[in-house]
Amino acid sequence: MKKNIESIGYSVFFEKGLESLQQFILNGGYSQVLVLVDRNTNDYCLPVLQATIPDITDYDIIEVDPGEENKNIDFCIGVWNTMLDFGADRKALMLNLGGGVVTDMGGFAASTFKRGIDFIQIPTTLLSQVDASVGGKTGIDLGNVKNIIGTFAQPKAVFISSAFLTTLDERQMRSGFAEVIKHGLIFDKALFEKTQSIDLKDNNLDDIIYRSVQIKNEVITQDPTEKGLRKILNFGHTIGHAIEGYSLENDSNPLLHGEAIAIGMICEAYLAHKINNLSIEGLHAVVEAFNSHFEKYNFNKEIYPILIQLMQNDKKNESNKLGFALLSEIGKCDYNIFVEEDLVLESLDFYRSL
Amino acid sequence: MKKNIESIGYSVFFEKGLESLQQFILNGGYSQVLVLVDRNTNDYCLPVLQATIPDITDYDIIEVDPGEENKNIDFCIGVWNTMLDFGADRKALMLNLGGGVVTDMGGFAASTFKRGIDFIQIPTTLLSQVDASVGGKTGIDLGNVKNIIGTFAQPKAVFISSAFLTTLDERQMRSGFAEVIKHGLIFDKALFEKTQSIDLKDNNLDDIIYRSVQIKNEVITQDPTEKGLRKILNFGHTIGHAIEGYSLENDSNPLLHGEAIAIGMICEAYLAHKINNLSIEGLHAVVEAFNSHFEKYNFNKEIYPILIQLMQNDKKNESNKLGFALLSEIGKCDYNIFVEEDLVLESLDFYRSL
Repeated sequence: MKKNIESIGYSVFFEKGLESLQQFILNGGYSQVLVLVDRNTNDYCLPVLQATIPDITDYDIIEVDPGEENKNIDFCIGVWNTMLDFGADRKALMLNLGGGVVTDMGGFAASTFKRGIDFIQIPTTLLSQVDASVGGKTGIDLGNVKNIIGTFAQPKAVFISSAFLTTLDERQMRSGFAEVIKHGLIFDKALFEKTQSIDLKDNNLDDIIYRSVQIKNEVITQDPTEKGLRKILNFGHTIGHAIEGYSLENDSNPLLHGEAIAIGMICEAYLAHKINNLSIEGLHAVVEAFNSHFEKYNFNKEIYPILIQLMQNDKKNESNKLGFALLSEIGKCDYNIFVEEDLVLESLDFYRSL
Repeated sequence: MKKNIESIGYSVFFEKGLESLQQFILNGGYSQVLVLVDRNTNDYCLPVLQATIPDITDYDIIEVDPGEENKNIDFCIGVWNTMLDFGADRKALMLNLGGGVVTDMGGFAASTFKRGIDFIQIPTTLLSQVDASVGGKTGIDLGNVKNIIGTFAQPKAVFISSAFLTTLDERQMRSGFAEVIKHGLIFDKALFEKTQSIDLKDNNLDDIIYRSVQIKNEVITQDPTEKGLRKILNFGHTIGHAIEGYSLENDSNPLLHGEAIAIGMICEAYLAHKINNLSIEGLHAVVEAFNSHFEKYNFNKEIYPILIQLMQNDKKNESNKLGFALLSEIGKCDYNIFVEEDLVLESLDFYRSL
């Protein structure tokens, strides 16, 4: 049995059956419980949740459409209005049951409704369990600019249950796995090596999920508001977010977050090799790690200006220079590295040439 | 010369000529300065500001429409998008130059843009100087529900200059004066008595502004997130906000905030007399204080259900009961008092009967 992880003022509970959840809610003295779901988690995860909190029968369900393209201000306004319709007061509790869209947007909606009500994150995808569950970042997209509006707001608790992962398809599992690999690359060579022998269909993932959350938590508790160290978590994300934003706007079947940042990590490993001492072997290891799990994404030079434009909105930039977190070796990452546009374009060429 | 007031991690500077502002900005090492104005402050206040920061010549102006009815999510989205267009990064500084609409919405936009950038409040109306300038509340309205979406976010500094007050008309001055009277009623009988001999046209208001900010600051530093004591600042606001929301939706020339809460304070003084030991003389003193400055607002019983509906969205409520802060005597106020709907309606009758 895993121990809980203590984060900033709250615990992350690793409990397949969500054993502590009901008592946690009852102890909170809440006036009301709201559950935010999307259509998928409403069908597949809500019954699991309901079975674990039999004594809590009076709650209101808010449903949003699934998919990153719906993590926007319009849906958020819908959530706020529904909270108003349900008469939610400041002592209401919000349970965010879903992937990153639900936990990010639900966290933002809760942290700004009446200037902030309590919320509990129950991430149901591998991606949200290893990425969105700790760190207190909430956010929504504006247009095609990712997570540009948000708050730093800590949940009251996070519950991680592997029971929900059985509802995911292969693409979703791979998408989350990209972040697990990232945690290895930036912080723990042993975890990275472990990921290379994992079969997502067969293996029990409890250990790598736990270790992944532990790494992220170690980083974010040292730097909750991303003044420094925390930026290493953005490895792959400067370019990855731009590709994700482009794909969301232009592809009928857009890339998932992890699929996009896998591409971003290959490109940024190239940058790391060029200007941050990552060895050629290190670069190859990164390329191979992602190529063995992800299909090639095809794009041409014509979209480079769009990608650069999207990168220019990245939160890590300063004074118009593109900011990156770059590996120095497998398991170590630096941050606040500003890179010329030409070299960024070269890294996109590199990816396309693979 | 007044001393600065120390609030939660920042100073309130009382400086007619904004003498410290330029150096304060230069010391911050910001990548960029954004100035949020409305049409009025763009015309009347921006030149004053510009003259005081001659060495800062490179800044971007964001203009919103003036008026409480524009403190909404649509305008806020416009502000966020303009910040993106200007390429604002996390080290940008936002100066909010205007009344409560600009400081509340600008504070919210800044505190949620890229999860929070620095902002300085420069309130230009009497109302915003005595009310919105300290306390770290930011917010916007959703539909006709006031300030329902927002954050607790502290500015880097607040600058209060009486130079801006000369640009205000009489109604705006009275609107702010209602909050000064409120600060006397809830916390300082001497201030209340002083307000009774003030002529808004003739008097220098520096002293009562300073004392008013001092009182508010004393309350909010004891209870920054409104778990208890801070609720006394909401005296008059449960009913006042409902009347303001109604008026915004229905009147061609809607009530200003202070005009609405003046009505709210009369009604809630009635409640205080009925159930919280406020003497009949106390009630009369409140009625007289506001009747001498404000015109009667006429409404009929048919709008009572709308007002009750609006009160039900008030942030102070718990478990569907209407929450109030009520005077016990002039200069003292209690909070967390929950009142039956019938008595609230009776207090509206009382106001109409005056």
